[in-house]
Amino acid sequence: MPPTTLINGLLEQSLPVADRGLAYGHGLFETITLQQGQPIAWQAHFNRLKAGAERLFIPLTDNIEQILLADLAILLAKQSTQPERQVLKITVTRGCGGRGYAVDAGVSINRILQLNAFPSYPDQPSANGVAVRLCQTRLAIAPQLAGIKHLNRLEQVLARSEWSAPDIREGLVLDTEGYLVEGTMSNLFWCRDGVLYTPQLDRCGVKGIIREQLIRLAKQQGIQLEEGLFTLGSLCQADEVFVCNSIIAIWPVIQCTLADQRQSRWPIGPITQCLQASLSAEGIY
Amino acid sequence: MPPTTLINGLLEQSLPVADRGLAYGHGLFETITLQQGQPIAWQAHFNRLKAGAERLFIPLTDNIEQILLADLAILLAKQSTQPERQVLKITVTRGCGGRGYAVDAGVSINRILQLNAFPSYPDQPSANGVAVRLCQTRLAIAPQLAGIKHLNRLEQVLARSEWSAPDIREGLVLDTEGYLVEGTMSNLFWCRDGVLYTPQLDRCGVKGIIREQLIRLAKQQGIQLEEGLFTLGSLCQADEVFVCNSIIAIWPVIQCTLADQRQSRWPIGPITQCLQASLSAEGIY
Repeated sequence: MPPTTLINGLLEQSLPVADRGLAYGHGLFETITLQQGQPIAWQAHFNRLKAGAERLFIPLTDNIEQILLADLAILLAKQSTQPERQVLKITVTRGCGGRGYAVDAGVSINRILQLNAFPSYPDQPSANGVAVRLCQTRLAIAPQLAGIKHLNRLEQVLARSEWSAPDIREGLVLDTEGYLVEGTMSNLFWCRDGVLYTPQLDRCGVKGIIREQLIRLAKQQGIQLEEGLFTLGSLCQADEVFVCNSIIAIWPVIQCTLADQRQSRWPIGPITQCLQASLSAEGIY
Repeated sequence: MPPTTLINGLLEQSLPVADRGLAYGHGLFETITLQQGQPIAWQAHFNRLKAGAERLFIPLTDNIEQILLADLAILLAKQSTQPERQVLKITVTRGCGGRGYAVDAGVSINRILQLNAFPSYPDQPSANGVAVRLCQTRLAIAPQLAGIKHLNRLEQVLARSEWSAPDIREGLVLDTEGYLVEGTMSNLFWCRDGVLYTPQLDRCGVKGIIREQLIRLAKQQGIQLEEGLFTLGSLCQADEVFVCNSIIAIWPVIQCTLADQRQSRWPIGPITQCLQASLSAEGIY
């Protein structure tokens, strides 16, 4: 069954081929957990969308937040039964254009909302941890596009194409200078001696919403947090490791296969579990 | 009037929103001049499309060339009168998918053919030359994606958004290390002391079809050609400069506005004119 889709307020499944999202990736997206129809961490998602739109010169009207929430209400109203949790994907593009990179200022944006089934994870990776691998694909250093969730995602597609084994749940990627960045679909954290580490994302990568919440929670709980440029060596020496995103929340990482087939292993640690509990307590998961 | 569009062999104007070209830019395109319905330099365009498809794991069937040419024949047959020249855009995407970067191997590609009016240039830039400017936007160094014409084109969108003055016909872009790469929509050449120079494009940039033809023609005509990493200084000292692509062929560059508003100027030179004549003589323009 295709996801229920709303395009510019109408139930549609398809978009004009002249859309600049298709032609150039000139657009942004957000992937949001809906809990009983309520978007979790909505404000954080909306703020990132707005920040991305400014960076990509996508004009949003003052009432865009109300419009998107009204779109969501229309979509939910079409559902005969509402699942407890589902995935909302919002895509905003610079609208339709002719050939050529220049934008016609008069053209409106296109907004697309899609409802998807929430993925089920019978092996309970949140509790049991996951195995990951190191990808060969490297992320280019592109400060102008770093941090935002734009539609130019070929690097993630290439990284994800490197494995098919179902027991590998995520791939970690380095940048072209060899620094750790993130997972293909998640952000990366690790702890050593009680300090929490995560890569800075001002040169490449996506600043995830859960990452942002965790940085705030760590601060609140007095956990020292270091954001910076770190190499693989730093990760291998960690006491605990986890990845996070808006759908999986936090998955402890218990094993990583490296380029030379060596493996690093970590236990599921107390800081990871504490942060999982904190997200739950805040109603984020 | 929208361009005449054929999607997977059918007259359609819109594509499912689940297309991976829209979601991630997982696709490729070619922009081709049609001369009396005949695609110019077809084999070169098709070869680049094939090379890009291998790089992006987009499976093309053995008969894809025949299929695309049959699509084109259908489109042309729908035209009541055929313009002498028009622009054919071919887009091939990895097809439709669900959420997530992993590809479902069973999913077919989507192919889109669009006919557009050939742009008119009343000021005859081929003969009179054009003014260009240096863009601030820098191209990221991404060898895995370099050379091919994929759908992740936000860098070009950002570079092109830097100016709106209609007398500036192109913007030149450097990579993040400061080396010259290309124009936003064209490749770049310059000459000094009889030697032709053009940036190497194995770290970023698009290997244009006309660029490829010109490298071949230069070799045939005994013009020494240097492909490499060059800084702006090398361009400023040139005797002649030009940009090229499959629609404009060759435009001499007579002026470039640099970041500090300084301007470099060049005459329209003999090597530029010789290469323009060679392209015409080969029936390429």
